[in-house]
Amino acid sequence: MSTFTAYCACEAHGQLMPKLFERRALRADDVAIEIAYCGVCHSDLHQVHNDWKNTVYPCVPGHEIVGHVAAVGPSVTMYKIGDRVAVGCLVDSCGQCDPCRAGEEQLCVKGPTATYNGKDRVTGETTLGGYADKIVVREKFVLRVPEALDLKYASPLLCAGITVWTPMREHGVGPGTKLAVVGLGGLGHMGVKIAVALGAEVTVITTSPSKADDARALGAHQVLLSTDQKAMMASLNAFDFILDTIPRRHDVNPYLMLLGRNGVLAVVGAIDLLEPVHGGLLIRNNRRLAGSLIGGLPATQELLDFCAEHQVLPQCELIAMDDINTAYTRVQANDVKYRFVIDMASMKHAQVVQ
Amino acid sequence: MSTFTAYCACEAHGQLMPKLFERRALRADDVAIEIAYCGVCHSDLHQVHNDWKNTVYPCVPGHEIVGHVAAVGPSVTMYKIGDRVAVGCLVDSCGQCDPCRAGEEQLCVKGPTATYNGKDRVTGETTLGGYADKIVVREKFVLRVPEALDLKYASPLLCAGITVWTPMREHGVGPGTKLAVVGLGGLGHMGVKIAVALGAEVTVITTSPSKADDARALGAHQVLLSTDQKAMMASLNAFDFILDTIPRRHDVNPYLMLLGRNGVLAVVGAIDLLEPVHGGLLIRNNRRLAGSLIGGLPATQELLDFCAEHQVLPQCELIAMDDINTAYTRVQANDVKYRFVIDMASMKHAQVVQ
Repeated sequence: MSTFTAYCACEAHGQLMPKLFERRALRADDVAIEIAYCGVCHSDLHQVHNDWKNTVYPCVPGHEIVGHVAAVGPSVTMYKIGDRVAVGCLVDSCGQCDPCRAGEEQLCVKGPTATYNGKDRVTGETTLGGYADKIVVREKFVLRVPEALDLKYASPLLCAGITVWTPMREHGVGPGTKLAVVGLGGLGHMGVKIAVALGAEVTVITTSPSKADDARALGAHQVLLSTDQKAMMASLNAFDFILDTIPRRHDVNPYLMLLGRNGVLAVVGAIDLLEPVHGGLLIRNNRRLAGSLIGGLPATQELLDFCAEHQVLPQCELIAMDDINTAYTRVQANDVKYRFVIDMASMKHAQVVQ
Repeated sequence: MSTFTAYCACEAHGQLMPKLFERRALRADDVAIEIAYCGVCHSDLHQVHNDWKNTVYPCVPGHEIVGHVAAVGPSVTMYKIGDRVAVGCLVDSCGQCDPCRAGEEQLCVKGPTATYNGKDRVTGETTLGGYADKIVVREKFVLRVPEALDLKYASPLLCAGITVWTPMREHGVGPGTKLAVVGLGGLGHMGVKIAVALGAEVTVITTSPSKADDARALGAHQVLLSTDQKAMMASLNAFDFILDTIPRRHDVNPYLMLLGRNGVLAVVGAIDLLEPVHGGLLIRNNRRLAGSLIGGLPATQELLDFCAEHQVLPQCELIAMDDINTAYTRVQANDVKYRFVIDMASMKHAQVVQ
C-alpha cells in the first residue's frame, strides 16, 4: 500500500477537495503511474453530480490520464520506469468474451471496469480516477505515448479523441469522405481535427454563426448553419458521414436528411432518448444511425500514434488542480475551448484534508 | 401503340376494375412483356388508396411482375421473344449519378422512375404497373428469371424479396450470423427463408404465440415471444442482425437491446416516425439502426439467381385477377400467408369497361 493525493467529491452537490487515499500494493502485472496531466471530461461532472444515480462517494474522477511509469510489478514486460504512458476510460475487462478478444474491451459483455466509479475485479473496491498524483493500472490497460506527442495534448485523446476516432475508423472515413461534425465542444473539436488529418472534406454544422471562425481555425473546410433552411436544403444527401456530438436529447432528422447513399450518422454524445426518428428518412438512401462507445485498447494506441505522427493536437486550457471547481462551473456553461487539462504539478500545493 | 387490359383504381375509395389502356410503341431499347403473374404488395394498397397523397388516377398498381418477352425494340440485345423475365419496382433512372453507376438505381439522386405512379422520363406520362396483361419496359430494367425458378414464385422476390435481401447482403449476413426477424408478413416470411438459405441462425420475434409453428415451418430455428420479458432479457446482446419488417410506427428499443457488438437493426417497413430511440442503447455495443430501400438491378438479379439455386420459394396464394378487391380486404386484415400472386391467365375473362 502507498498513499496518494486525489481531488474527490464526497457528495453529489459538494465541491471537489483534496484527500489522501491508499493505493493497492502492486500486483504482478500492475504499473504505477505518476500522473502529469488529466483531462476534464463532461462525464466527470455527471459522475460527481450523481446524474446517473450510481456514484459511490468519495468519487475521484478523471479518465484522460497521462504521465510516467513510477514502478512496475514483477511480470510487467511492456513498460519500465520513466516510460511515457496513458490510461483512458478502462482499467480492466473480463478478457474472455468476443469483444475483449477482438480488442474492443469497452464492449466487454461482462462490463469493463471503468477507471473511476468502477469495481475492481479482484477486490471489489471502487476504482479511483486521475485527479490524483498517482494511479495503479494493469499493464494491459496502459497505453504508450509516443515521444512526438506532448504529454498534455495526449490527455484529451484518451476519451474525447477515442470517442470520435472509433466511429470514423469503423465507417471508413478517409481521403475524400464528405464528413460533417455537429456540435463544436470537446468531442466535436477533436472530430474536426482528426477528420482533417484523415483527409476528409470537413464541414462543421452549427446553430451559431459565431462558431464559424472557430471551426475554420480548427481546420474545417466549410461551415453550415443549421438555422439556415436554404443552406440545409442545398446540402440534402451531401454527406457520407456525420459525427453527432450533441450531448443531450435532440432531433437527428435534420442531419439524417443530409446523408447520401449508405451514409452514417454516428451518435457519440447523447445517452438520452432522441426525438422520434423518421423511418422513411432511414430507408431513403439506406441511411444508418450508429452509436459508438469510446474504443478498445488497440484503437486507442492507434489514435495516439496517429496523432503523434500527424501532430493532431487537441486545443487545451491548462488549469491547476485547485481550479477544478471553477472549471466545472465553466464546463457547465460551455465556456471552454475545448478541453480543460489539469496540470498535476500543481497538486504539490494541495492542502490535504485528512 | 397497342392496347392492353389492366385493373385500375379511378379514385381513392373505389374498387379496382378492368379497363383498356394504350401502351407506347416500342422504343429502341424497350422490351414488351406478356405478364404471367403479378404479386400484391402492401404498397399497392397505399398507392391505390392515395395514402401518400400523390396518386395519379387511373392507377394501375403492381411491381412484382414476371412473364415472357413478347417483343423487343431494335437495339435490345439481352432478351429475345419467349424469354422468362421480370420487372420490379423500378422502370428507369437517370443512369448518371453515383448510385445509378453503382447499380443502386433505387437510390438515384434524381429519383428513379417507379413502375407505377411514376413519371416516364421521355413522355412525362404516368407509369402503369403489372395488374395488366402486358407491360413495356426499358431493357436495362428487365431481369432474367432462371429456368429453375417457377415464375409464380419469382413474383414476390421483386419487391418483398429484394427489400430483405439488400440489407442482409450489405451487412454481411451469412453462415453463423445470429439473425432475428421481427414481423412475419410478406417481408418477414421472405426474410426467414432467405436468411436460412444464407446459413444464418434464424429467430423469429413475434408478439403472437400462434405464429410459432408458422415460423418453424418457414425454417426458423427459434421463436422468441416479445411479450415474454424473461425470454427477452435472456436474449440481450444475442443477435448480430435484426430484420425489422413492422410496417408502421413502433418502438425499436426492445429490439435494439438484443443486438450485440456492432449489431444492426435494419428497418425496411416503417416509413413513419418511430418511437424515440434511446441514444444510450445505440452507443452501448456500437449498435446501428439502418434503413434499407428495395435494391438495384444487379442485386435483384443476384437474388433471383440465388433463389433459383437454393430453391427459396415464397409462400404464395394464387388468385384470379377479379379476386383482387377481396384480396385487398384480406391484406388489410393481415389475412394472407404470405403473398397474394395474381395469375394473369385469369385476365382473359375480364369484362372490360370502356
